[in-house]
Amino acid sequence: MTKGALLYEGKAKKVFAADDPEYLIVCYKDDATAFNGLKKGTIVGKGIINNKMSNLLMQRLEQAGIPTHFVKELSERETLVKCVSIVPLEVIVRNIAAGSFSKRYGVEEGIAFESPTIEFSYKNDDLGDPLMDEYHARAMKFASAEEIELIKKYAFGINTLLKEFWAECGVILVDFKLEFGRLPDGSIILADEISPDTCRLWDSQTGEKLDKDRFRRDLGGVEDAYSEVMRRLLEKI
Amino acid sequence: MTKGALLYEGKAKKVFAADDPEYLIVCYKDDATAFNGLKKGTIVGKGIINNKMSNLLMQRLEQAGIPTHFVKELSERETLVKCVSIVPLEVIVRNIAAGSFSKRYGVEEGIAFESPTIEFSYKNDDLGDPLMDEYHARAMKFASAEEIELIKKYAFGINTLLKEFWAECGVILVDFKLEFGRLPDGSIILADEISPDTCRLWDSQTGEKLDKDRFRRDLGGVEDAYSEVMRRLLEKI
Repeated sequence: MTKGALLYEGKAKKVFAADDPEYLIVCYKDDATAFNGLKKGTIVGKGIINNKMSNLLMQRLEQAGIPTHFVKELSERETLVKCVSIVPLEVIVRNIAAGSFSKRYGVEEGIAFESPTIEFSYKNDDLGDPLMDEYHARAMKFASAEEIELIKKYAFGINTLLKEFWAECGVILVDFKLEFGRLPDGSIILADEISPDTCRLWDSQTGEKLDKDRFRRDLGGVEDAYSEVMRRLLEKI
Repeated sequence: MTKGALLYEGKAKKVFAADDPEYLIVCYKDDATAFNGLKKGTIVGKGIINNKMSNLLMQRLEQAGIPTHFVKELSERETLVKCVSIVPLEVIVRNIAAGSFSKRYGVEEGIAFESPTIEFSYKNDDLGDPLMDEYHARAMKFASAEEIELIKKYAFGINTLLKEFWAECGVILVDFKLEFGRLPDGSIILADEISPDTCRLWDSQTGEKLDKDRFRRDLGGVEDAYSEVMRRLLEKI
């Protein structure tokens, strides 16, 4: 499979055409942004880690029955994925209060929920990715009631699987963001990535942050944190 | 029933103790605020209209099987209601895109939804009444899953009843905000008010706004609009 035209450049990835229009080639960059693009920087080696980690986790999810866009790792930064039409909703699952949840509702970070929560936000940078409940997502025709139920089922299922796996690595899965897409036949599959860019991961013993919050909050040791979670994952997978 | 101590003064109402602690006396003011209190003004006679309108509509809902806090109208501005512990969620039902929905999602006002939508926001002025989905409401222990289902059932039922009634009055029910409360026995009932302060009401023929948006948006004729919807309601009820 050879890389065709650059179709889209996002904050952390480039997307290229593949020979076959049913596929795309994703290329992971080291660029990091936060706060809807207001903060910009580089996390050296991040693209390599996120590519590998996302691919390993997606293969694990596939084995557990969650359909994903992963096809084949092409190089240390490039992966062949199925071409989907993205559902314009960010799907956020939370086990513990942190980040925008804590800020929005005035709740201290670190409080564990009795049950995981799910929320959607409308993927739209100009509007600041506003929260959007499932009734609004249906009214906007972003997804049908059945599709939203399936997305919720997949998202909670992914949470159960990943929480357990990360626990084996000595890491607490605090929260994470998923994106889903539709194949030409209309079926819904997991797309985008699963990485320290899209998950909050805390060390189980010390509570140390091992994710993009180190970059967002200028905590230092960003590259070391990404390497450390990758090291732990490779030991257990 | 005699009026006791002032317990609470809100933006549009005062709440007094009654002789019996199971009840409260609500007194409707002419004060109007918008944009989380940033805009302040007076709508002369509003308190009289909102008191009467809310009481008439709540009695209609009671007859249709929706439990409400209404007990007895005491005077043109005062009503005896059941004392509840308020569920700290604003419950918004929408039939047509308008107001914060249109602004938040970049959607033109006036687009009708195929099905009504519901959303919750956390009643907290300091946090700007942020949107909150039902998973978060449960995580924050504001309501149980069963209570949220019941609140949704009541809210959609109220929408069906009120939409039909306002249509008879030549008025389109665009959207509205409800609040619910818990009685000492734990049962959920409708509280707060139903009025042009809490509903968007458009003239069916002309689309003219007959609600608080005339005040929010400096459209003039605020008092006339409140009087006009009251006149139409009294003709049909």
